[in-house]
Amino acid sequence: MIAYGRFIAGGEIIEDYFEIVNGKIFLDSSHFSIDDVRFLPPVTPEKIIAVGLNYRDHAEELNMSIPDEPVLFMKSPSSIIGDGDAIILPEKSMRVDYEGELAVVIGERCKDVTVKEAEEVVLGYTCFNDVTARDLQQKGWQWGIAKSFDTFSPIGPYIATDIEPDNLKIKTVLNGKVVQESNTSHLIFSVFELVSYVSSIMTLKEGDVISTGTPAGVGKLSSGDVVTVEIENIGKLTNHVR
Amino acid sequence: MIAYGRFIAGGEIIEDYFEIVNGKIFLDSSHFSIDDVRFLPPVTPEKIIAVGLNYRDHAEELNMSIPDEPVLFMKSPSSIIGDGDAIILPEKSMRVDYEGELAVVIGERCKDVTVKEAEEVVLGYTCFNDVTARDLQQKGWQWGIAKSFDTFSPIGPYIATDIEPDNLKIKTVLNGKVVQESNTSHLIFSVFELVSYVSSIMTLKEGDVISTGTPAGVGKLSSGDVVTVEIENIGKLTNHVR
Repeated sequence: MIAYGRFIAGGEIIEDYFEIVNGKIFLDSSHFSIDDVRFLPPVTPEKIIAVGLNYRDHAEELNMSIPDEPVLFMKSPSSIIGDGDAIILPEKSMRVDYEGELAVVIGERCKDVTVKEAEEVVLGYTCFNDVTARDLQQKGWQWGIAKSFDTFSPIGPYIATDIEPDNLKIKTVLNGKVVQESNTSHLIFSVFELVSYVSSIMTLKEGDVISTGTPAGVGKLSSGDVVTVEIENIGKLTNHVR
Repeated sequence: MIAYGRFIAGGEIIEDYFEIVNGKIFLDSSHFSIDDVRFLPPVTPEKIIAVGLNYRDHAEELNMSIPDEPVLFMKSPSSIIGDGDAIILPEKSMRVDYEGELAVVIGERCKDVTVKEAEEVVLGYTCFNDVTARDLQQKGWQWGIAKSFDTFSPIGPYIATDIEPDNLKIKTVLNGKVVQESNTSHLIFSVFELVSYVSSIMTLKEGDVISTGTPAGVGKLSSGDVVTVEIENIGKLTNHVR
Protein backbone atom coordinates (compact mmCIF):
# COMPACT_ATOMS: atom_id res chain seq x y z
CA MET A 1 0.00 0.00 0.00
CA ILE A 2 1.12 3.55 -0.76
CA ALA A 3 0.66 5.94 2.14
CA TYR A 4 1.36 9.52 3.14
CA GLY A 5 2.17 10.44 6.69
CA ARG A 6 4.49 11.67 9.39
CA PHE A 7 6.55 9.53 11.71
CA ILE A 8 9.54 9.68 14.00
CA ALA A 9 12.30 7.17 13.27
CA GLY A 10 15.79 7.36 14.76
CA GLY A 11 15.02 10.75 16.31
CA GLU A 12 14.11 12.29 12.96
CA ILE A 13 10.64 13.46 11.85
CA ILE A 14 9.82 12.18 8.38
CA GLU A 15 6.86 13.51 6.38
CA ASP A 16 6.50 11.89 2.98
CA TYR A 17 4.90 9.27 0.80
CA PHE A 18 6.06 5.74 1.60
CA GLU A 19 5.16 2.14 0.85
CA ILE A 20 3.97 -0.34 3.47
CA VAL A 21 4.50 -4.05 2.78
CA ASN A 22 4.26 -6.81 5.40
CA GLY A 23 4.62 -4.47 8.38
CA LYS A 24 7.59 -2.63 6.90
CA ILE A 25 7.78 1.00 5.74
CA PHE A 26 9.82 1.52 2.57
CA LEU A 27 11.00 5.05 1.84
CA ASP A 28 13.68 5.73 -0.81
CA SER A 29 16.50 3.37 0.10
CA SER A 30 15.53 3.06 3.80
CA HIS A 31 13.08 0.79 5.51
CA PHE A 32 11.66 0.69 9.03
CA SER A 33 9.58 -1.82 10.94
CA ILE A 34 6.14 -0.32 11.47
CA ASP A 35 6.41 -1.25 15.17
CA ASP A 36 9.60 0.76 15.62
CA VAL A 37 8.33 4.16 14.45
CA ARG A 38 6.08 6.63 16.20
CA PHE A 39 3.39 8.03 13.93
CA LEU A 40 2.33 11.66 14.26
CA PRO A 41 -1.07 12.96 13.11
CA PRO A 42 -0.76 12.71 9.31
CA VAL A 43 -2.42 16.05 8.55
CA THR A 44 -3.00 19.54 9.95
CA PRO A 45 -6.49 20.32 8.65
CA GLU A 46 -8.12 23.73 8.54
CA LYS A 47 -11.29 21.87 9.49
CA ILE A 48 -12.63 18.48 10.46
CA ILE A 49 -16.15 17.89 9.18
CA ALA A 50 -17.85 14.86 10.65
CA VAL A 51 -21.07 13.13 9.73
CA GLY A 52 -23.67 11.89 12.18
CA LEU A 53 -26.03 8.95 11.74
CA ASN A 54 -24.48 7.65 8.53
CA TYR A 55 -24.88 3.93 9.30
CA ARG A 56 -28.48 2.76 9.65
CA ASP A 57 -27.78 0.52 12.67
CA HIS A 58 -26.13 3.39 14.63
CA ALA A 59 -29.07 5.74 14.00
CA GLU A 60 -31.33 2.98 15.28
CA GLU A 61 -29.29 2.36 18.44
CA LEU A 62 -29.62 6.08 19.30
CA ASN A 63 -33.37 6.03 18.44
CA MET A 64 -32.78 8.67 15.74
CA SER A 65 -34.51 8.64 12.37
CA ILE A 66 -32.53 8.02 9.17
CA PRO A 67 -31.62 11.45 7.78
CA ASP A 68 -32.55 12.44 4.22
CA GLU A 69 -29.43 14.58 3.88
CA PRO A 70 -26.06 14.27 5.65
CA VAL A 71 -26.03 15.52 9.27
CA LEU A 72 -22.80 17.51 9.54
CA PHE A 73 -20.87 19.01 12.42
CA MET A 74 -17.31 20.26 12.95
CA LYS A 75 -14.62 19.18 15.40
CA SER A 76 -11.83 21.52 16.45
CA PRO A 77 -8.38 20.78 14.97
CA SER A 78 -7.07 21.36 18.50
CA SER A 79 -8.62 17.99 19.44
CA ILE A 80 -6.34 15.99 17.11
CA ILE A 81 -3.93 13.35 18.43
CA GLY A 82 -2.02 10.63 16.62
CA ASP A 83 -1.64 6.88 16.89
CA GLY A 84 -0.27 5.92 20.32
CA ASP A 85 -1.29 9.16 22.02
CA ALA A 86 -3.58 9.22 25.07
CA ILE A 87 -7.27 10.10 25.02
CA ILE A 88 -7.73 12.15 28.20
CA LEU A 89 -11.16 11.99 29.86
CA PRO A 90 -12.28 15.53 30.78
CA GLU A 91 -13.77 16.32 34.19
CA LYS A 92 -16.82 17.97 32.60
CA SER A 93 -18.14 14.63 31.24
CA MET A 94 -19.22 11.44 32.98
CA ARG A 95 -19.68 9.49 29.76
CA VAL A 96 -17.11 9.58 26.95
CA ASP A 97 -17.67 7.20 23.99
CA TYR A 98 -15.45 5.84 21.20
CA GLU A 99 -16.79 6.00 17.63
CA GLY A 100 -14.64 4.21 15.02
CA GLU A 101 -14.83 5.82 11.57
CA LEU A 102 -13.31 5.98 8.10
CA ALA A 103 -11.95 9.47 7.41
CA VAL A 104 -11.34 11.01 4.00
CA VAL A 105 -8.47 13.47 3.59
CA ILE A 106 -8.84 16.18 0.94
CA GLY A 107 -5.92 16.66 -1.44
CA GLU A 108 -6.65 20.02 -3.05
CA ARG A 109 -8.66 23.19 -2.58
CA CYS A 110 -12.12 22.75 -4.08
CA LYS A 111 -15.74 23.98 -4.02
CA ASP A 112 -18.95 22.58 -5.55
CA VAL A 113 -17.41 19.27 -6.59
CA THR A 114 -19.82 16.78 -8.19
CA VAL A 115 -20.03 13.20 -6.91
CA LYS A 116 -18.22 12.09 -10.07
CA GLU A 117 -15.40 14.60 -9.58
CA ALA A 118 -15.00 13.87 -5.86
CA GLU A 119 -12.41 11.10 -6.23
CA GLU A 120 -10.03 13.55 -7.94
CA VAL A 121 -9.90 15.88 -4.91
CA VAL A 122 -9.25 13.09 -2.37
CA LEU A 123 -5.71 12.49 -1.11
CA GLY A 124 -6.59 9.27 0.68
CA TYR A 125 -8.18 7.52 3.66
CA THR A 126 -7.32 6.94 7.28
CA CYS A 127 -8.78 5.73 10.59
CA PHE A 128 -10.56 8.17 12.88
CA ASN A 129 -12.00 7.90 16.36
CA ASP A 130 -14.79 10.46 16.81
CA VAL A 131 -14.51 10.57 20.61
CA THR A 132 -17.68 12.05 22.07
CA ALA A 133 -18.84 13.37 25.46
CA ARG A 134 -22.18 11.60 25.06
CA ASP A 135 -23.78 13.04 28.20
CA LEU A 136 -23.05 16.60 27.09
CA GLN A 137 -24.23 15.89 23.54
CA GLN A 138 -27.48 14.42 24.88
CA LYS A 139 -27.88 17.33 27.30
CA GLY A 140 -28.16 19.61 24.27
CA TRP A 141 -24.60 20.80 23.61
CA GLN A 142 -23.98 21.40 19.93
CA TRP A 143 -22.40 18.15 18.76
CA GLY A 144 -19.16 19.70 17.52
CA ILE A 145 -18.42 21.14 20.94
CA ALA A 146 -19.25 17.92 22.85
CA LYS A 147 -16.74 16.24 20.51
CA SER A 148 -13.95 18.85 20.61
CA PHE A 149 -12.32 18.39 24.00
CA ASP A 150 -8.54 18.16 23.64
CA THR A 151 -7.49 14.62 22.52
CA PHE A 152 -11.00 13.77 21.17
CA SER A 153 -9.87 13.33 17.54
CA PRO A 154 -7.39 10.46 17.20
CA ILE A 155 -6.43 10.13 13.51
CA GLY A 156 -4.02 7.92 11.61
CA PRO A 157 -1.69 6.17 11.70
CA TYR A 158 -1.16 7.39 8.08
CA ILE A 159 -3.20 8.11 4.96
CA ALA A 160 -3.65 5.25 2.49
CA THR A 161 -3.56 6.95 -0.90
CA ASP A 162 -4.21 4.13 -3.37
CA ILE A 163 -7.31 2.35 -2.10
CA GLU A 164 -11.03 2.39 -2.92
CA PRO A 165 -13.23 3.51 0.01
CA ASP A 166 -16.57 1.85 -0.67
CA ASN A 167 -16.08 -1.73 0.47
CA LEU A 168 -13.77 -1.80 3.50
CA LYS A 169 -14.29 -3.82 6.66
CA ILE A 170 -14.19 -1.52 9.70
CA LYS A 171 -14.03 -2.53 13.34
CA THR A 172 -13.35 -1.05 16.74
CA VAL A 173 -11.62 -3.16 19.38
CA LEU A 174 -11.83 -2.21 23.06
CA ASN A 175 -9.38 -3.98 25.39
CA GLY A 176 -9.09 -6.87 22.90
CA LYS A 177 -12.84 -7.30 22.34
CA VAL A 178 -14.53 -6.35 19.05
CA VAL A 179 -17.23 -3.76 19.88
CA GLN A 180 -18.04 -2.31 16.45
CA GLU A 181 -17.93 -4.28 13.20
CA SER A 182 -19.28 -3.18 9.85
CA ASN A 183 -18.30 -2.35 6.29
CA THR A 184 -18.13 1.02 4.55
CA SER A 185 -20.51 -0.46 1.95
CA HIS A 186 -23.22 0.15 4.58
CA LEU A 187 -22.73 3.94 4.62
CA ILE A 188 -26.04 5.74 3.98
CA PHE A 189 -24.19 8.57 2.16
CA SER A 190 -21.11 7.31 0.32
CA VAL A 191 -17.66 8.87 0.63
CA PHE A 192 -17.94 10.68 -2.70
CA GLU A 193 -21.48 11.86 -1.99
CA LEU A 194 -20.21 13.34 1.29
CA VAL A 195 -17.26 15.12 -0.34
CA SER A 196 -19.61 16.60 -2.93
CA TYR A 197 -22.20 17.63 -0.34
CA VAL A 198 -19.72 19.29 2.04
CA SER A 199 -18.09 21.13 -0.87
CA SER A 200 -21.50 22.57 -1.78
CA ILE A 201 -21.45 24.42 1.58
CA MET A 202 -17.83 25.36 2.11
CA THR A 203 -14.52 25.49 0.30
CA LEU A 204 -12.46 22.42 1.15
CA LYS A 205 -8.70 22.76 1.43
CA GLU A 206 -5.70 20.44 1.24
CA GLY A 207 -5.53 18.40 4.45
CA ASP A 208 -9.17 18.89 5.45
CA VAL A 209 -10.75 15.81 6.99
CA ILE A 210 -14.26 14.46 6.46
CA SER A 211 -15.09 11.64 8.84
CA THR A 212 -17.86 9.48 7.48
CA GLY A 213 -19.80 8.36 10.58
CA THR A 214 -19.78 5.39 12.91
CA PRO A 215 -21.60 2.03 12.80
CA ALA A 216 -23.55 0.52 15.71
CA GLY A 217 -21.80 -0.51 18.91
CA VAL A 218 -20.64 2.80 20.36
CA GLY A 219 -19.81 2.58 24.03
CA LYS A 220 -18.04 4.07 27.00
CA LEU A 221 -14.33 4.64 27.47
CA SER A 222 -12.80 4.32 30.94
CA SER A 223 -9.40 5.19 32.29
CA GLY A 224 -6.94 2.39 31.44
CA ASP A 225 -8.78 1.25 28.30
CA VAL A 226 -7.02 0.60 25.02
CA VAL A 227 -9.11 1.33 21.91
CA THR A 228 -8.23 0.46 18.32
CA VAL A 229 -9.99 1.47 15.10
CA GLU A 230 -9.01 -0.96 12.37
CA ILE A 231 -9.91 -0.56 8.70
CA GLU A 232 -9.21 -3.09 5.95
CA ASN A 233 -6.39 -2.05 3.58
CA ILE A 234 -5.47 0.88 5.83
CA GLY A 235 -4.29 -0.26 9.26
CA LYS A 236 -4.86 0.24 12.96
CA LEU A 237 -5.21 3.40 15.04
CA THR A 238 -4.59 2.59 18.71
CA ASN A 239 -4.96 4.91 21.69
CA HIS A 240 -5.01 4.42 25.42
CA VAL A 241 -7.33 6.25 27.76
CA ARG A 242 -6.39 8.27 30.83
CA MET B 1 -6.53 53.64 19.65
CA ILE B 2 -3.85 51.00 19.21
CA ALA B 3 -4.79 48.26 16.75
CA TYR B 4 -3.36 45.20 15.07
CA GLY B 5 -4.36 44.24 11.57
CA ARG B 6 -3.64 43.73 7.92
CA PHE B 7 -4.29 46.21 5.16
CA ILE B 8 -3.32 47.00 1.60
CA ALA B 9 -1.94 50.49 1.01
CA GLY B 10 -0.15 51.56 -2.15
CA GLY B 11 -0.17 47.98 -3.46
CA GLU B 12 1.65 46.66 -0.40
CA ILE B 13 0.23 44.32 2.27
CA ILE B 14 1.02 45.60 5.74
CA GLU B 15 0.50 43.44 8.85
CA ASP B 16 1.45 45.19 12.07
CA TYR B 17 0.39 47.17 15.10
CA PHE B 18 -0.65 50.73 14.25
CA GLU B 19 -2.37 53.70 15.84
CA ILE B 20 -5.70 55.13 14.66
CA VAL B 21 -6.45 58.76 15.40
CA ASN B 22 -9.21 60.85 13.75
CA GLY B 23 -9.62 58.50 10.77
CA LYS B 24 -5.90 58.22 10.11
CA ILE B 25 -3.64 55.19 10.51
CA PHE B 26 -0.20 55.96 11.94
CA LEU B 27 2.53 53.38 11.43
CA ASP B 28 6.20 54.21 12.04
CA SER B 29 6.77 57.39 10.06
CA SER B 30 3.91 56.76 7.58
CA HIS B 31 0.26 57.60 7.81
CA PHE B 32 -2.75 56.63 5.71
CA SER B 33 -6.35 57.79 5.60
CA ILE B 34 -8.53 54.95 6.86
CA ASP B 35 -10.75 55.40 3.79
CA ASP B 36 -7.85 54.84 1.38
CA VAL B 37 -6.70 51.43 2.62
CA ARG B 38 -8.29 48.05 2.07
CA PHE B 39 -8.42 45.98 5.26
CA LEU B 40 -7.88 42.22 5.09
CA PRO B 41 -9.18 39.80 7.73
CA PRO B 42 -6.99 40.66 10.72
CA VAL B 43 -6.38 37.05 11.81
CA THR B 44 -6.14 33.48 10.52
CA PRO B 45 -7.64 31.52 13.42
CA GLU B 46 -7.38 27.79 13.93
CA LYS B 47 -10.95 28.01 15.14
CA ILE B 48 -13.86 30.41 15.53
CA ILE B 49 -15.96 29.67 18.60
CA ALA B 50 -19.23 31.48 18.70
CA VAL B 51 -21.78 31.85 21.47
CA GLY B 52 -25.52 31.57 21.03
CA LEU B 53 -28.20 33.31 23.08
CA ASN B 54 -25.87 35.54 25.05
CA TYR B 55 -28.12 38.63 25.13
CA ARG B 56 -31.40 38.11 26.97
CA ASP B 57 -33.48 40.03 24.39
CA HIS B 58 -32.16 37.89 21.50
CA ALA B 59 -32.97 34.63 23.31
CA GLU B 60 -36.47 36.00 23.86
CA GLU B 61 -36.99 36.99 20.20
CA LEU B 62 -36.13 33.39 19.18
CA ASN B 63 -38.40 31.99 21.94
CA MET B 64 -35.42 30.22 23.50
CA SER B 65 -34.84 29.96 27.25
CA ILE B 66 -31.93 31.78 28.89
CA PRO B 67 -29.07 29.26 29.09
CA ASP B 68 -27.40 28.44 32.41
CA GLU B 69 -24.06 27.85 30.69
CA PRO B 70 -22.71 29.30 27.43
CA VAL B 71 -24.16 27.70 24.27
CA LEU B 72 -21.13 27.22 22.00
CA PHE B 73 -20.69 26.28 18.36
CA MET B 74 -17.87 26.55 15.82
CA LYS B 75 -17.72 28.32 12.47
CA SER B 76 -15.30 27.21 9.76
CA PRO B 77 -12.30 29.51 9.18
CA SER B 78 -13.04 29.05 5.46
CA SER B 79 -16.07 31.33 5.98
CA ILE B 80 -13.96 34.38 6.91
CA ILE B 81 -14.01 37.57 4.85
CA GLY B 82 -12.75 41.06 5.65
CA ASP B 83 -14.19 44.56 5.72
CA GLY B 84 -15.47 45.54 2.27
CA ASP B 85 -15.79 41.96 0.99
CA ALA B 86 -19.11 40.57 -0.27
CA ILE B 87 -21.40 38.27 1.67
CA ILE B 88 -22.64 35.82 -0.96
CA LEU B 89 -26.13 34.34 -0.44
CA PRO B 90 -25.97 30.58 -1.05
CA GLU B 91 -28.59 28.78 -3.15
CA LYS B 92 -29.27 26.26 -0.37
CA SER B 93 -30.84 28.88 1.91
CA MET B 94 -33.92 31.08 1.48
CA ARG B 95 -33.27 33.10 4.65
CA VAL B 96 -29.83 34.44 5.56
CA ASP B 97 -29.59 36.73 8.62
CA TYR B 98 -27.01 39.24 9.86
CA GLU B 99 -25.94 39.02 13.55
CA GLY B 100 -23.70 41.84 14.76
CA GLU B 101 -21.28 40.77 17.50
CA LEU B 102 -18.21 41.71 19.50
CA ALA B 103 -15.40 39.21 18.86
CA VAL B 104 -12.45 38.51 21.14
CA VAL B 105 -9.11 37.52 19.58
CA ILE B 106 -6.81 35.29 21.61
CA GLY B 107 -3.17 36.34 21.89
CA GLU B 108 -1.46 33.24 23.20
CA ARG B 109 -1.86 29.48 23.50
CA CYS B 110 -3.73 28.66 26.68
CA LYS B 111 -5.91 26.06 28.46
CA ASP B 112 -7.96 26.19 31.67
CA VAL B 113 -7.63 29.93 32.12
CA THR B 114 -9.53 31.41 35.08
CA VAL B 115 -11.85 34.38 34.63
CA LYS B 116 -9.25 36.52 36.39
CA GLU B 117 -6.45 35.35 34.09
CA ALA B 118 -8.50 35.72 30.91
CA GLU B 119 -7.56 39.32 30.16
CA GLU B 120 -3.89 38.30 29.94
CA VAL B 121 -4.49 35.87 27.06
CA VAL B 122 -6.56 38.32 24.97
CA LEU B 123 -4.92 40.15 22.06
CA GLY B 124 -7.89 42.46 21.49
CA TYR B 125 -11.40 43.01 20.15
CA THR B 126 -13.01 43.40 16.76
CA CYS B 127 -16.38 43.48 14.99
CA PHE B 128 -17.92 40.24 13.75
CA ASN B 129 -20.99 39.45 11.69
CA ASP B 130 -22.20 35.93 12.53
CA VAL B 131 -24.05 35.44 9.22
CA THR B 132 -26.55 32.61 9.56
CA ALA B 133 -28.70 30.51 7.23
CA ARG B 134 -31.63 30.78 9.63
CA ASP B 135 -33.93 28.42 7.74
CA LEU B 136 -31.32 25.65 7.78
CA GLN B 137 -30.53 26.27 11.46
CA GLN B 138 -34.23 26.07 12.32
CA LYS B 139 -34.65 22.97 10.16
CA GLY B 140 -32.26 21.18 12.50
CA TRP B 141 -28.83 21.67 10.95
CA GLN B 142 -26.11 21.87 13.57
CA TRP B 143 -25.66 25.61 14.10
CA GLY B 144 -21.98 25.70 13.14
CA ILE B 145 -22.73 24.26 9.72
CA ALA B 146 -25.70 26.57 9.01
CA LYS B 147 -23.28 29.41 9.79
CA SER B 148 -20.23 28.20 7.83
CA PHE B 149 -21.10 28.85 4.20
CA ASP B 150 -18.25 30.67 2.44
CA THR B 151 -18.33 34.44 3.27
CA PHE B 152 -20.48 33.94 6.42
CA SER B 153 -17.84 35.27 8.86
CA PRO B 154 -17.04 38.93 8.14
CA ILE B 155 -14.46 40.11 10.71
CA GLY B 156 -12.57 43.33 11.25
CA PRO B 157 -11.66 45.87 10.14
CA TYR B 158 -8.78 45.45 12.65
CA ILE B 159 -8.24 44.37 16.27
CA ALA B 160 -8.40 47.07 18.93
CA THR B 161 -5.77 46.03 21.45
CA ASP B 162 -6.04 48.62 24.22
CA ILE B 163 -9.73 48.78 25.12
CA GLU B 164 -11.96 47.32 27.83
CA PRO B 165 -14.72 45.02 26.46
CA ASP B 166 -17.46 45.22 29.07
CA ASN B 167 -19.21 48.51 28.33
CA LEU B 168 -19.20 49.12 24.58
CA LYS B 169 -22.16 50.30 22.51
CA ILE B 170 -22.81 47.91 19.64
CA LYS B 171 -25.11 48.39 16.69
CA THR B 172 -25.87 46.91 13.31
CA VAL B 173 -26.93 49.18 10.47
CA LEU B 174 -28.72 47.77 7.41
CA ASN B 175 -28.95 50.06 4.38
CA GLY B 176 -28.56 53.08 6.64
CA LYS B 177 -31.14 52.00 9.23
CA VAL B 178 -30.18 50.89 12.76
CA VAL B 179 -31.53 47.33 13.21
CA GLN B 180 -29.63 46.15 16.30
CA GLU B 181 -28.57 48.38 19.18
CA SER B 182 -27.27 47.27 22.54
CA ASN B 183 -24.26 47.40 24.83
CA THR B 184 -21.79 44.65 25.73
CA SER B 185 -22.70 45.33 29.38
CA HIS B 186 -25.88 43.32 28.60
CA LEU B 187 -23.96 40.11 27.80
CA ILE B 188 -25.28 37.21 29.92
CA PHE B 189 -21.77 35.66 30.04
CA SER B 190 -19.04 38.31 30.02
CA VAL B 191 -16.07 38.28 27.67
CA PHE B 192 -13.69 36.95 30.33
CA GLU B 193 -16.18 34.34 31.53
CA LEU B 194 -16.44 33.11 27.93
CA VAL B 195 -12.67 32.93 27.43
CA SER B 196 -12.35 30.97 30.67
CA TYR B 197 -15.24 28.64 29.80
CA VAL B 198 -14.05 27.86 26.26
CA SER B 199 -10.51 27.25 27.53
CA SER B 200 -11.90 24.66 29.97
CA ILE B 201 -12.95 22.58 26.92
CA MET B 202 -10.21 23.15 24.37
CA THR B 203 -6.76 24.63 24.03
CA LEU B 204 -6.99 28.15 22.60
CA LYS B 205 -4.27 29.34 20.26
CA GLU B 206 -2.96 32.68 19.07
CA GLY B 207 -5.42 34.18 16.60
CA ASP B 208 -8.42 32.12 17.71
CA VAL B 209 -11.67 34.03 17.71
CA ILE B 210 -14.50 33.88 20.25
CA SER B 211 -17.57 35.78 19.12
CA THR B 212 -19.72 36.76 22.04
CA GLY B 213 -23.29 36.55 20.71
CA THR B 214 -25.78 38.93 19.16
CA PRO B 215 -28.44 41.21 20.69
CA ALA B 216 -32.09 41.41 19.56
CA GLY B 217 -32.99 42.64 16.10
CA VAL B 218 -31.56 39.96 13.82
CA GLY B 219 -33.07 40.01 10.35
CA LYS B 220 -32.80 39.01 6.74
CA LEU B 221 -30.13 39.97 4.24
CA SER B 222 -31.05 40.42 0.57
CA SER B 223 -28.96 40.88 -2.52
CA GLY B 224 -27.87 44.51 -2.80
CA ASP B 225 -27.96 45.19 0.94
CA VAL B 226 -25.12 46.93 2.77
CA VAL B 227 -24.65 45.83 6.39
CA THR B 228 -22.38 47.45 9.00
CA VAL B 229 -21.49 46.23 12.49
CA GLU B 230 -20.27 49.19 14.53
CA ILE B 231 -18.75 48.94 18.00
CA GLU B 232 -17.78 51.84 20.21
CA ASN B 233 -14.00 52.39 20.50
CA ILE B 234 -13.37 49.83 17.74
CA GLY B 235 -14.85 50.88 14.41
CA LYS B 236 -17.10 49.73 11.59
CA LEU B 237 -17.20 46.46 9.67
CA THR B 238 -19.09 46.98 6.39
CA ASN B 239 -20.03 44.33 3.84
CA HIS B 240 -22.31 44.27 0.84
CA VAL B 241 -24.53 41.34 -0.04
CA ARG B 242 -24.70 39.52 -3.36
